[in-house]
This record gives sequence, C-alpha cells and structure tokens, in this order.
Amino acid sequence: MPVMAHLQRRFETSKPLAGHRIAGCLHVTKETAVLIGALRAAGAEVAWSGCNPLSTQDDVAAALAADGVSIFAWHGLSVDEFYWCIDATLKCRPTLTLDDGADLIFRVHSRFPELADGILGGTEETTTGVQRLQAMANDGKLLYPVVAVNNAETKWDFDNVYGTGQSALDGVLRATSILLAGKTLVVAGFGHCGRGTAVRARGMGARVVITEVDPIAALKAILDGFEVLPMAEAAAHGDVFITTTGMRDVITRRHFMVMKDGAVICNAGHYDCELNLDDLNEMAAPPTEVRDNNQEFVLADGRRIYLLAQGRLINLAAAEGHPSEVMDMSFANQFLSMVSLAVDGCARDRKVYSISGEQDREIATIKLRTMGVGIDELSPAQQGYLQDYSQGT
Amino acid sequence: MPVMAHLQRRFETSKPLAGHRIAGCLHVTKETAVLIGALRAAGAEVAWSGCNPLSTQDDVAAALAADGVSIFAWHGLSVDEFYWCIDATLKCRPTLTLDDGADLIFRVHSRFPELADGILGGTEETTTGVQRLQAMANDGKLLYPVVAVNNAETKWDFDNVYGTGQSALDGVLRATSILLAGKTLVVAGFGHCGRGTAVRARGMGARVVITEVDPIAALKAILDGFEVLPMAEAAAHGDVFITTTGMRDVITRRHFMVMKDGAVICNAGHYDCELNLDDLNEMAAPPTEVRDNNQEFVLADGRRIYLLAQGRLINLAAAEGHPSEVMDMSFANQFLSMVSLAVDGCARDRKVYSISGEQDREIATIKLRTMGVGIDELSPAQQGYLQDYSQGT
Amino acid sequence: MPVMAHLQRRFETSKPLAGHRIAGCLHVTKETAVLIGALRAAGAEVAWSGCNPLSTQDDVAAALAADGVSIFAWHGLSVDEFYWCIDATLKCRPTLTLDDGADLIFRVHSRFPELADGILGGTEETTTGVQRLQAMANDGKLLYPVVAVNNAETKWDFDNVYGTGQSALDGVLRATSILLAGKTLVVAGFGHCGRGTAVRARGMGARVVITEVDPIAALKAILDGFEVLPMAEAAAHGDVFITTTGMRDVITRRHFMVMKDGAVICNAGHYDCELNLDDLNEMAAPPTEVRDNNQEFVLADGRRIYLLAQGRLINLAAAEGHPSEVMDMSFANQFLSMVSLAVDGCARDRKVYSISGEQDREIATIKLRTMGVGIDELSPAQQGYLQDYSQGT
Amino acid sequence: MPVMAHLQRRFETSKPLAGHRIAGCLHVTKETAVLIGALRAAGAEVAWSGCNPLSTQDDVAAALAADGVSIFAWHGLSVDEFYWCIDATLKCRPTLTLDDGADLIFRVHSRFPELADGILGGTEETTTGVQRLQAMANDGKLLYPVVAVNNAETKWDFDNVYGTGQSALDGVLRATSILLAGKTLVVAGFGHCGRGTAVRARGMGARVVITEVDPIAALKAILDGFEVLPMAEAAAHGDVFITTTGMRDVITRRHFMVMKDGAVICNAGHYDCELNLDDLNEMAAPPTEVRDNNQEFVLADGRRIYLLAQGRLINLAAAEGHPSEVMDMSFANQFLSMVSLAVDGCARDRKVYSISGEQDREIATIKLRTMGVGIDELSPAQQGYLQDYSQGT
Repeated sequence: MPVMAHLQRRFETSKPLAGHRIAGCLHVTKETAVLIGALRAAGAEVAWSGCNPLSTQDDVAAALAADGVSIFAWHGLSVDEFYWCIDATLKCRPTLTLDDGADLIFRVHSRFPELADGILGGTEETTTGVQRLQAMANDGKLLYPVVAVNNAETKWDFDNVYGTGQSALDGVLRATSILLAGKTLVVAGFGHCGRGTAVRARGMGARVVITEVDPIAALKAILDGFEVLPMAEAAAHGDVFITTTGMRDVITRRHFMVMKDGAVICNAGHYDCELNLDDLNEMAAPPTEVRDNNQEFVLADGRRIYLLAQGRLINLAAAEGHPSEVMDMSFANQFLSMVSLAVDGCARDRKVYSISGEQDREIATIKLRTMGVGIDELSPAQQGYLQDYSQGT
Repeated sequence: MPVMAHLQRRFETSKPLAGHRIAGCLHVTKETAVLIGALRAAGAEVAWSGCNPLSTQDDVAAALAADGVSIFAWHGLSVDEFYWCIDATLKCRPTLTLDDGADLIFRVHSRFPELADGILGGTEETTTGVQRLQAMANDGKLLYPVVAVNNAETKWDFDNVYGTGQSALDGVLRATSILLAGKTLVVAGFGHCGRGTAVRARGMGARVVITEVDPIAALKAILDGFEVLPMAEAAAHGDVFITTTGMRDVITRRHFMVMKDGAVICNAGHYDCELNLDDLNEMAAPPTEVRDNNQEFVLADGRRIYLLAQGRLINLAAAEGHPSEVMDMSFANQFLSMVSLAVDGCARDRKVYSISGEQDREIATIKLRTMGVGIDELSPAQQGYLQDYSQGT
Repeated sequence: MPVMAHLQRRFETSKPLAGHRIAGCLHVTKETAVLIGALRAAGAEVAWSGCNPLSTQDDVAAALAADGVSIFAWHGLSVDEFYWCIDATLKCRPTLTLDDGADLIFRVHSRFPELADGILGGTEETTTGVQRLQAMANDGKLLYPVVAVNNAETKWDFDNVYGTGQSALDGVLRATSILLAGKTLVVAGFGHCGRGTAVRARGMGARVVITEVDPIAALKAILDGFEVLPMAEAAAHGDVFITTTGMRDVITRRHFMVMKDGAVICNAGHYDCELNLDDLNEMAAPPTEVRDNNQEFVLADGRRIYLLAQGRLINLAAAEGHPSEVMDMSFANQFLSMVSLAVDGCARDRKVYSISGEQDREIATIKLRTMGVGIDELSPAQQGYLQDYSQGT
Repeated sequence: MPVMAHLQRRFETSKPLAGHRIAGCLHVTKETAVLIGALRAAGAEVAWSGCNPLSTQDDVAAALAADGVSIFAWHGLSVDEFYWCIDATLKCRPTLTLDDGADLIFRVHSRFPELADGILGGTEETTTGVQRLQAMANDGKLLYPVVAVNNAETKWDFDNVYGTGQSALDGVLRATSILLAGKTLVVAGFGHCGRGTAVRARGMGARVVITEVDPIAALKAILDGFEVLPMAEAAAHGDVFITTTGMRDVITRRHFMVMKDGAVICNAGHYDCELNLDDLNEMAAPPTEVRDNNQEFVLADGRRIYLLAQGRLINLAAAEGHPSEVMDMSFANQFLSMVSLAVDGCARDRKVYSISGEQDREIATIKLRTMGVGIDELSPAQQGYLQDYSQGT
C-alpha cells in the first residue's frame, strides 16, 4: 500500500491527530491494520470494531491487540455480539468516528446521542451508508458533520468497480469452482459494483444479464452490450446470480420459484437482505454445507439452489475483499479526511460533505507515481485556452 | 428517432414554443432536421446555421429551406462565411438560442450584446462549450441563462461514449480502409469520447495507448487495461492517433518528429486545433490528397504522415456523425430544455444550469420503452428502505 | 503490402514464372493489382477476370489494362457477362489457374475440359471453393492438382477472422450508419468469418447471438460468452443479421415472417444464396433503395426489412473488402503457390494440396519483420527437449 | 458431469470393458473419481496413480480406496514416491493404459517393456505428452497404439482454452490476492492454454504481453490486440508471469536479472521446468513462504520475486484444476477411447491415433443437450449443396 506509506511518512512528525480518539467500525483485515497504523502514527488513539460479522481476519485482530490497539472484533459474530463490539469502542468517547456501512454512527445517534457533542466529525465508506446519512441530514437529524469518503472519485470509481468487480467473482470461484465461461450470470444492479462485476464476468466468458430499477443505468447496460431483463424473467435463465444493489428483497420467493436446478445465488452488496433468505428457508429443507461458504437448499420439487456465504458479502466472506491496491486509495481518503476533520470539523455544519477534488487528484497523483506511470501536463498556454472564451471555430 | 417522435406528438397541440424565435447553430444533418421539425411543431420560428464548416449535408439544408426554414449553411464554408451564416440567423432577433460549440452565443456576446435582453435563455450541446460558458459565468460576463444540455446524463454519457466512440472509428475506416487489428492506436484523452473510442478500438483488435493530463482519468485507463504514456513517448509507438481532449496543441512538432512512417492522425474533439497543423505544414511539403479526407504529408526525411479530414471532427467529416440512436436522446434534451426555458427562462439567473434528473430519467424511460426493454420497479417497501436509517447490519 | 513487395524483389530476377500463362479469377481491387504485378515481375503472362459481379473497382481494372494486362472485368456484371469474362481469360490457354470461389476452374471442367491437359495446377482462395474441389477430387473428377490457398494458416486464420470480421461490420456501417452498441446482432455461422465478425461486433457494444449447425462450433460460441439459438428463434430477436456460413437458405421465408420491423439482413459468405431472396421478393413489394447498398422491403403487414448489397458479399460491395494488411499474406500464399506449381505441378496428383507449414511460417516471419516485431527462438537445448521422451515429471 | 453420467448409463449394461485391467495415471480429483466410476461400471478393473506430486486430493483418494479401487496417490509425493506409485499400478498387468503427461507409458517403455505385449493400447491427455509419444512413434520406438485424447477438439479446444484459462488465473488470485486490473501480465506462449489465459486476464483488466517462438502464433496474438515481445524485453515490464509453453527454460537467470521488485512468476504448463528454479535459487537467499503457495525470493540487490506453487501447475496446485464442466468432455473422450481400444486395439498399429470426428461431434452434441441448447440442422437440400460443384456464382 504505497500511497498509505507515503502519507504516513508525511504526517508522522507533525502528528495532526494528536489528542484525538477515533472509534472505527470497518472490516478488520491486513489493509485496515495499515490504516490503523497510519492513524496512530499521526497521533490518534484508536478503538476499533468490525463492520461485518464474517469479515474479521482473527489473526490480524490478534496482532493489532498485541500491538496495543483497542480492538473488538472476531470472525463469526452474532448480532448481539456485533453491537456489543461497536458499543465497546464508543467507551473511549471518540472525537472522530470512521464508518463502513454507518453502523457505528447510527449507534451513536440511536443509543448514545450524548456522545455527539464531543465528536468533531465522521467518515463513511459505502454508497449505502452515505445514502442513509444524507437522508438523515435532509431530515435535520444528523448530529455532526460526515465526510462521504465513498464519494471520492479515487474511492468509488476504483474500489467499487475494480475491487468489488474482481473480488466478487473471486469469491464465487472459491466457493463453487464452476466454469464461468458459457454460464449465464445475472447481475442485479448496474451501478459501480455491478458494472465492475459484469464487465469482468464477460471477460471470463460468461453471458451476462443485468437487472435494474434506474432507466439510465439500464440504458447504459444495454449500450455496453448486456441484456437487460426484469428479475422475474432473468430468474429463469440465470446459472449464477450476484446482487449489487444496496436494496433489500432483490431476489425473493417468486424468483426462487422459477430458478433452474443448480442455480447459485450470492450477494456483493453491503447487507445480506438483498436475497430474501427467509423465503428461501421456508421453501426448502434445512440446507447442507457442500463446500466452504456454499450451502445447498433443496426445494420441494427437487431443484437445488446454492447459497454462497450465507448471503453476506461474497467478496469478503469467500474471497479476501478488495485487493490492497484499491484499498490503498480508499484508505488514503479515510486518512486524509480524518486529518481534515481534526483541523476544521468544529467549523462544519451537520451535513454530508464530499471530498475535495484536490484531495482526489493528489491521491491519484501519488498512486501513479508509485506505479511508475508518467502523464502529460498542460502548458500555461493550454491552461489559458481552457478558460478562454474569446476564440471560435 | 422514436423519442423525438414521442415528444413531438406530446407538444404539437399545446405548442409551448408559440411566439418564440429560436436561433440555432448545430450540424445540419438529417437528425437535426427532426429536431427543427419538432421545434416548429411546438410553435417556434427557427433560423439555423451549421456549427462546423464541413459538417453540413447540403441535401438536408436544401430540403429544410424548401420547407420554409431560414437556413444558412452549406458544406465547405470559409471562416468568413461561417460567421456570416451565424450573424444571418441573429437577424430574427431570437428569444432563445441553441448551440453546439457555443459559437452562436459567443457571437451574441461579442458582436450583438444588444440582443441579449430579448433572449430568455440558451442551450449548449458540447463539453467544450459548457466549460467556456461556465468560465464566462464565473467572470460575471454571461448575459443570459444557459442550460448545459451536454451535462444531461442521457447526453454526455451516451452521445460521447457510444456515438463518438463508434463514429470516430467509422471515420478512420472510411478515410483509410486500414486493418485496426494489430495496430497501435493512441487516444489522447480518456474522457467520455476517449473512453468510448478506446474501448471500441480494443474491441476491433487494436492495442490502445492513452495519454492524459488528469491523474484520475489516467488511473482509470490503466485499471481498464490500457497503457498510459506521455504523448512524447506514445508518439513513437502509434500507428493511428485520435485526439479527444477539447484542448489545443495535443500533437505538435516534437511529436511529428518521432512518428513512424505511415502514421495516421485525426481529431475527434470539437475544434481542429488539437493537432498543430501549422507545425505539420512547416515540416512537410504541400500535402497530396490520397483518398477522400486523407492527405499525405511527406516530411524532409521521407516519413509520411496521413492527416484525416483536415483535422476537423473525423466522425462528422469522414463518417456520418453520431448515429441517430444517440442523437435521439441528445436532441430530446435540447428540445425539452427549449420548452423549459420558454416557460421559466425569465426567472432564471445568468448562469449555467444543469438538466434536471427528472428530465434525464424521463428521456431514458421513453427510450427503453421504444426499445421494448422492461426493467424492475421498486416496491413501496423498497422505496422506504432506501430512506430508512433505523436498520443495521 | 510489404510481404508482397519482399517476395517480388526476391523473384524478379530469377523469374520462375517465365513462360507461364496464368488465368486468374479474383476480385479486381488495388490489392489484386499488386498480386498481378508480382506475377508478371516473376515472368508470367496474365489474363484476369473478377470473381464477383459487384466487386470490381473499375479504376483499378482500367489502370491494369493500360499497363498491358488482359483484364476482363467491370462493376455490375450480369450473369452472362460474368461467364463471358471468365471464358475470355481462358483464350490464353493457361498453364496455371488462380481462383477465388472456384468459378474459373469449374468453367474449365464443365466447358473447356480440353484445356486441362495444358494446366499444371491451380489455386483456390476460399473455404467454399476448397470444399467443392475436395468433393470433386473425392469423386475422381478433378482434372489437375489444386493448392488450397485457403487452408494456409496465414490465410484463413487471418483473412477470414480479421479481414472479414472488420470489413463485414464496416460494410454494415457504411450501408446503414446504425449504432451497433445495444443492437442484437445475429451471426449465422461460428467458423472463422463468423467468429471474427462476432468478436468485433461485441467489441463495438452489440449483443451477439450465434446460429450454427456444427455442435463443436456451437459449444465454442457458448463458452466464448455468446448466446446460441436456432435461427427460427434468433430471427425474432435480431436487429441485424449477417450470414457467414457458405451454405444456402440460411435465412428464408419462415425467418422473414417473424423478424422485427426494421431488421437489417446481409451476407458475408461467398455466394448470395445464403439469404433466400426469392422468398423475400415474394413476400414484399418491390424494394426501394433508401441508401447506397440498402434496399427497403415492405412486407404485407407493414414490417420493413433492409437488405444490404443485394445479398452479395457485404464487405466487398458496401465496404472495401479485406484490408490490404491481410491480403498481403493471403496473396503471398497465392504467389508462392503459383511459383511452386510452376516448378513441380506436373509431378503432382489430381488432388487438393495443403500449403506447407514452411511456406506458412515463412510468410508469418516476413510479416513480423515488416511490422518490427521480434520473437524468441528456441535454443538448441530447447529444440532437443521438444523431441526428448526420456525425461519425466 | 452430465456427459459422463450419460455415457455411464449407456455402457453399464453392455460392459464393453469387462475383462480389462486399466492402469491410470491422472490427477486424483473428484472429477477423476467420476471417470474411474464409469470405467468400473463398464466392467474394467482399475489401478490408479496421480500424475503430479502436488495435485492429489487426499480425501478423494481415500474415498476411492474405500470403494475398492487400487489407488496409489497422496498429496506431496517425493520423486521416488511418485515413481513407486506408478510402478505399483503396473503390478496389475494392465491391458490398457491411461495417461496425463505420459509418465506411466514412459515407465512401461523404460522399465517394464515386457508388459507391452499384453497392452492393447493407451491414451494420453496432454499436448506435451502427445508430442513426445509422436516423437517415439516417428523413431519406431512406440510399443503399442496410443490414442491422443488431447487432440480431440472437444478436449484441447475446451479444456486448454477455457479450463486452463480460468483456473490459472484463479490460482494466481488464491496465491496472491492481487488486483489484476492495471497489472502487466506476461503470458509465455500463445497456444490454447496461453490464449485462454491471455483473453481472460485482459477481461479482468490486465494489460497482457505475449512471448512466442512460433511466428504464426505471434502474429495471431498481435492481431488479437496483444503486445508481443521477446521474453528478454518482457521480463522488465511484467508484474505477473505465467508460462504455458510445454518448453523448458522459458524464464531463466537473465530474465530474473531485470524483473521488477515484486514480480510474480508461475507456470501453467505441464512440467515445472518452464521456470529455471535452479537459477532462481542460486540468485536468491532461501525463500520464505509468505502465503500458501507463494514463496518470496530476495535477490542480492534487494528485489523480491514471488514464486507460486513451486513452479508446479498453478491451476492444480493453487486452485482446483480444470472446472468439472470441461473435464466432463475431456474424460468422455478418455472413456470412449478406452472402449474403442478394448474393441479394436489389437488391430491397430504402433502409432499415435487421433480421435475421430464422429466421437468429437457426439460428445459436443450430448453436452449441448445437457445444457438445454438447440442448434440448427442442415436440410437434405443443404447437405446436397455442400457437395455440389455444379453451381456457380
């Protein structure tokens, strides 16, 4: 993670986070350990929980704990344990919060609103979380400013397209070992995660069908050469289904009713409610684990449906999440946003802020440099041309 | 153009443009004839010029004139004639202006500012034009409100990616008949036009190299599998060069110096200054026309460079511009923006307005319907979920 | 055509074709002019006809005639004129024949068998022609040896995949100017021409459906990510149909019956019988030419079908045929086969011969060199390893 | 594996292998267990060893043994143990041999030639093995007929392209978890395995460079849009190297000398000698295992090279080998070849036989049927046309 290494070196002397207590709620992986290290090197105290019951790498958690981080996370949390862990991190009375899915910040708002006064600001990593925080801000219910890390171009246009795109397919392969070539893969949603997944699946030889609710996204999918169908029709054609919508109940009883024998279903969106597992459990006998992260449900008529990773994020549960190459930029945005909130959070309004274009371009520039790639620069004459409206055709 | 047909039917009775005089400056093609027809059906008087000296289809211009449109355009205009045509359209004392490249609106500002008071608003079709109008607005020099049609998602994300992407390559093939497979194609710029061109060129078997000045765009190009080089390096490797930057002097003397014998150069950006043709003319003997739209320049050392379409828009000059499938949406945005400015232009500020998301989605929805494609709809429960921040993992 | 230039230089002194009379029947284009030039430089007398009624470039024919070649070809031949031209070339009493589609050699067999004794051998360029000549040889009816130029890997694996693949789409664009992105394109046949066309159409953003009669080819199409359907089903889904089968009656009445309004049909196989135009003419009113090479047929129920290039080879009739980059290798095979037959034709049996691997590799090696591409060479130790069966795992 | 299931049902009553003893040497995986089951169902006695020291799935071996198969294989064999296992299977005095890599049949020839008289024939699965057996046959040293299962189109054109293509990348991901997008991937060899890998790597967003020794394959790679370089140049650019050549010493000391820090190397060809590991071991300190199947070598100058799966087949050692979808067809060829050799092996010569086109098409037809895909059939009139040389243009 060369961008993070660069940033850590830059701030480890000036320590702009000195005196700050950061509560973080984000997948405990080796990449996150790098982020935590940089936050501490910049002066912060850190308390951390995981943002998904199945995504914690226990060895990483152990190593962080051994290194003195207050870490509350282990693989395979129950729902109660999940919230217990979050609550434990709030005991530090944070001055900054860092979220991936907004569970921590929701917990502050719903259970510990008294903490909000001491919090300068927070960050949020996901599309889903930002949408909800924006809804709260619109209702006047947001208690402190939040930086939408997700909205950084160096985050969502990379992490979601390239990171989720690859790792979701990686998870499907590890959990099934099927041949993608010749399969019909139904991707629900043609946002960044969906597009990244769809393009790669096609690149591996699958025929890809897209479902959408947004007409503009649907049109792009068609013009990119994909077939677009309502899920009710796609359900009967798919060999593999991957949901990437951020929406609940994308695949439900009426879809399970018409699926082919042997259909594989999984989710690459944030929450596991994209697949209606209550429906599936009602329709089928108790499932059998046929491989790691692969449960076979036999329906009354004998058809089999294979559920991967219990409907949790397939890329984190069955593969290794986003490759570190993209987390490097995503976490650089988290890190610089923490620094920025520490400086001016108290002067901000209770709303959702985007990341500045300057920060975005700076991160991209550092990344290119570490990859050894050179690009062109505008000459002064060219910069002038950009602003010049006196010339014509 | 089924979307335009749909809109024309909707407004031909209510005639919301009745009493309005529209001066338009936009390529005179069969698609534009459909737009003009719809504007007139909605009640407007129209005076029209072409926005590019080489793009007018003379038979279309003749047919429009025969049909009673005040049309000032023919193929192969000189620069003086070009401006004479624009000025002629302004004689109608327009209440609305419609631009593609902002030449008409600049002419109002520089030569006929007295017309501005009578103009409720204008529209602009291109990225380049919008950038310049925004610069004018920032300087407080914009004299009436402008709607950035270009910024509609159903315009730039379709017209630029799919329209320019295909038609630029079509122009190269018609002007050269070369085999794209196995060629190294250098695309300057990885914006929407550049990406559309690059993806299709790769799809035809070319190896594609990208040049960029923006680090984020450069990074996307790399992660999409393209090689990124500064133009100074790319110049020595390319077999074909296509500029899509909106910037001047992208390829200049120092690049011509190192190009391979037989290199082909052309431009798919708005203006012909992306290639420095003064440099090329100084370095070479007077060119020979070896095919339509294909001039051979022989340099002092014997190397040959082939300039297509005199550096003008390759897709319009050597092929047929954007296919009508994308112009349909683009012009639907022009049309609905004219209607909207007629209604509320007088209440707007002197700035650059984006197109509303509603208009964008409406156009996409009409388009999908005319293509026979169905998509999903969110249930009320799902819509509630989108706004609901009370639920967690 | 740098490979042809290389070969011409090699043989223009030794003149291995001196004393030979070559009757050729092959599209009269600028590339063919290069082949004829090389044959003459190597000592041959040449008499030439075109192998397709619509493919002759009249300016090329005129230039060849002016240069002293006996040339019998013009654009827009009737069937009678077509055979008159072929017969005229046979007046030279050829010692070698050169075919593209086998029309000339069939004419020798059916009308002028007395010429066969004086003919050392012939060549054939196409898959279709070779299949038929092989059938004749199997029946003992072939009167002299034929080299299947088509079977050279540097011919069919390049010319058919890359040449037809690009130029067929180029022809569709020139004849229609439609947007390929988002269209459903049905390619009949997944042989080399079909695969080349399908891959490029996908690369331009089309959704591609394949029809096949061979189960292995069908399976490859599926595993390459294409949808495979019987034509009876595909007919109802396609926006554009391209036949590449070498078989007659691929699209007939029952398919026209179910096509969408606006469907486009064309043929990229050798003969125009792949589309059953008798059926189409019976079902529709006399067609209207709506653009060059684009006829509109209106069926009784009002649906419109657009036939491109009268069902003749779309890439030759509406575009410019194979780009010279691939013809260079294809014609190098023709040229070297002529030289080889001149040397040893009299010693060969009356059967169909493949081109030797050495000739194939030689042509590829010359081509790579002219492109400036270097490859690895096996060391003697590695060459030994290839033959060594004494080593194990 | 529906094709194998179909074939097992067909032969389990007639038992054409009754009385035969088959010695097999092929990766012991769950797919192979299906093949063994079908051979036994058809009446054969079976003795089996694994053909790669690292590819045996021990649980499968145990289950087969429990089921009464004479199985001699476990994961992590030494070289001595490897040959001991093969020799053990020969104790059954086989009447048929079945090979993947030709180790078993070489062992018969070099150590147990006295067994050859009792052997009716053998089969061989790999390109590498067939090449060597062909060399033996050319030298008159082959002691019994061998069917080249590898040469079946339903084997090499599927197994190698789609199976190796996917599983080699799957192995790289499992052993490294790197992001493929934006990486430069060097694929040595553009045969079927190399092409399958290269196309998929590009589909995942990598920039792919090809190295080759065959000019025709190199030319195809270029026209498919890949860059072709000699390995000496490619070595300095690659982030990941995958060898697929069947040749030894493809990457050696002089390549390691110029690789980038962090380069990843692996092999997807049959033997581990494609990478010269002696050179690497001499140049570096003893390696560290940084992940499963991933060893870090630190060179004297500090650069790190990561060797995956010890240079053994990356797709078998780090992933799960070919997906069962392709093994289904490949093993159907093995099975039908065993049946055919049992019937007529005694009447065959001591040479290498190809699989008949009929068997190939039959397997493809069964496969399509099990996938629910229909294709067209030639009408009698069309079949006649194929053979008809009396018609012209």
